[in-house]
Amino acid sequence: MIDREPRALFAQAKEGSRTALARLVTYVESGGARQRESVALAYASAPPYVVGLTGPPGAGKSTLTDRLITTLLERGRVGATTIDQLGVLCVDPSSPFTGGAILGDRIRMQDHATNAAVFIRSMATRGHLGGLSLAVPDALRVLGAVGFPVALVETVGVGQMEVDIASAADTTVVVTNPGWGDAMQANKAGLLEVADLFVINKADRAGVRETRRDLEQMLDLGGARAWRPLIVETVAQTGQGTEALVEAVEAHQAYLASGELARARERRARAELDQVLALTLRARVTTLSGSEAYEAQVRALLAGTTDPYGAAEALLSR
Amino acid sequence: MIDREPRALFAQAKEGSRTALARLVTYVESGGARQRESVALAYASAPPYVVGLTGPPGAGKSTLTDRLITTLLERGRVGATTIDQLGVLCVDPSSPFTGGAILGDRIRMQDHATNAAVFIRSMATRGHLGGLSLAVPDALRVLGAVGFPVALVETVGVGQMEVDIASAADTTVVVTNPGWGDAMQANKAGLLEVADLFVINKADRAGVRETRRDLEQMLDLGGARAWRPLIVETVAQTGQGTEALVEAVEAHQAYLASGELARARERRARAELDQVLALTLRARVTTLSGSEAYEAQVRALLAGTTDPYGAAEALLSR
Repeated sequence: MIDREPRALFAQAKEGSRTALARLVTYVESGGARQRESVALAYASAPPYVVGLTGPPGAGKSTLTDRLITTLLERGRVGATTIDQLGVLCVDPSSPFTGGAILGDRIRMQDHATNAAVFIRSMATRGHLGGLSLAVPDALRVLGAVGFPVALVETVGVGQMEVDIASAADTTVVVTNPGWGDAMQANKAGLLEVADLFVINKADRAGVRETRRDLEQMLDLGGARAWRPLIVETVAQTGQGTEALVEAVEAHQAYLASGELARARERRARAELDQVLALTLRARVTTLSGSEAYEAQVRALLAGTTDPYGAAEALLSR
Repeated sequence: MIDREPRALFAQAKEGSRTALARLVTYVESGGARQRESVALAYASAPPYVVGLTGPPGAGKSTLTDRLITTLLERGRVGATTIDQLGVLCVDPSSPFTGGAILGDRIRMQDHATNAAVFIRSMATRGHLGGLSLAVPDALRVLGAVGFPVALVETVGVGQMEVDIASAADTTVVVTNPGWGDAMQANKAGLLEVADLFVINKADRAGVRETRRDLEQMLDLGGARAWRPLIVETVAQTGQGTEALVEAVEAHQAYLASGELARARERRARAELDQVLALTLRARVTTLSGSEAYEAQVRALLAGTTDPYGAAEALLSR
């Protein structure tokens, strides 16, 4: 019997109930009555170490994520972090699918879904006022609170929303393919901002050397940074390069351990707080617009006894 | 000696001081310390009847506005409204020019600037947080409070901002030229939303009949409305059609007098209040972000003793 109360659900999820965990993710995703309590409980625990994978459709992210799940569970650790179970969020901002569904070519991940050590969940935009860029970090905190030491987030696309979602990851992997020089050039600024690692997937195809050269050039032109993104070649279909990718994640994790992880998480906390503040205030304007106090101010405006600034102040000081 | 206090400036402006009036417009435009008081005083009086002229660059709006000024002052009235003086705001949302400047081909209006019955002012975006879509209605209220019964607003362009600014007018005139079928087709929805009257300026050129037919067709397809926009042909260079344009304005004014003017002004009051509410709340987030209370909430977030929603609530309830 699965409970409905967040506190009880957290207890059940910690004991291994995937149904309880799925319900908690639904709560934080849907913005319903139990969202606030679920989020409050989730933030009381440390977040998981999050690896994000992003890139255009067709780059092979799902297959790579699939391989990564196997490799990480076999190794049982990433850096100093022990991996006894793994949480995976699949995000498709453009998809109208409802939460909980496994989308299209992600169907192969279903193999892992029967593995008790893996929790896979697709996330959709429905309900949550702040959209996925708030729902995803909240869901990641739920995973952390339930005991997942590591989580993967797979996001389709390279637009602003994907960048926002990827910025919820500690290590962000941008997945490219051979021959993508032009496409990458067009998104250069966004990619440089977000990428901690680059993967050239489908590296058994022609054009790997040119793509690596394009990436290196882009990084050269991007100026000096404390961390220069590594470039890893993989063939997700065969599993080739997956070990190297995990080692690259570990290299980035070691770099972050010098204090950068804490700084990045502080930046993220500020960004999320600003977003929730803006969201809350927007909701207040909507609520105000329907109120009797608002109508009274409109009447005062029309009578010439107040001005828009005075009316706004009167409404907001209530 | 020109005062600096809004209340004294209003008194001087009512007695005819154009320098005092110009300073008041600068106050509402610049968002400085005296903006609030100036706006509050302006809204205590009735607004002027506002005729807006909008259209793409090169349509001949400035020349038409120039002619309209002459015609309106010669007639000395529009409908039941006596015109003893005329206020003119020239708005170019894309222009980096500072307020008070007379722009490019508007230079010919300078002839009127020496006329004591005319007040001409260019408005720019600098300073005002809410941009021109708040500054223009505020400046119009200043004109009303100073005793201008009628004001003209000339806006370059047909984008969303121009539509917003035009919506501050009681009668909006969209200025077109012969041969503009395609250009109008592309902006159809926006034009239908905003236009009370259409002018086909430069009507001495070829293509007038086709343009009129295109406009009529657009109006036919736009569905039934209580007011069907009139179409007036003008040649601003010679003054041809200016009288007919004023008569069309009067026809629209008579239509509004049935109660629609009050309804339109109520819609506008609501829209402006919503805009100021959103603006004020945005400013609050910015102020909050720099505060010690905000930093305390960020620390609580990092310590896991709160969540973003709880932190936002704590900050906003202060």
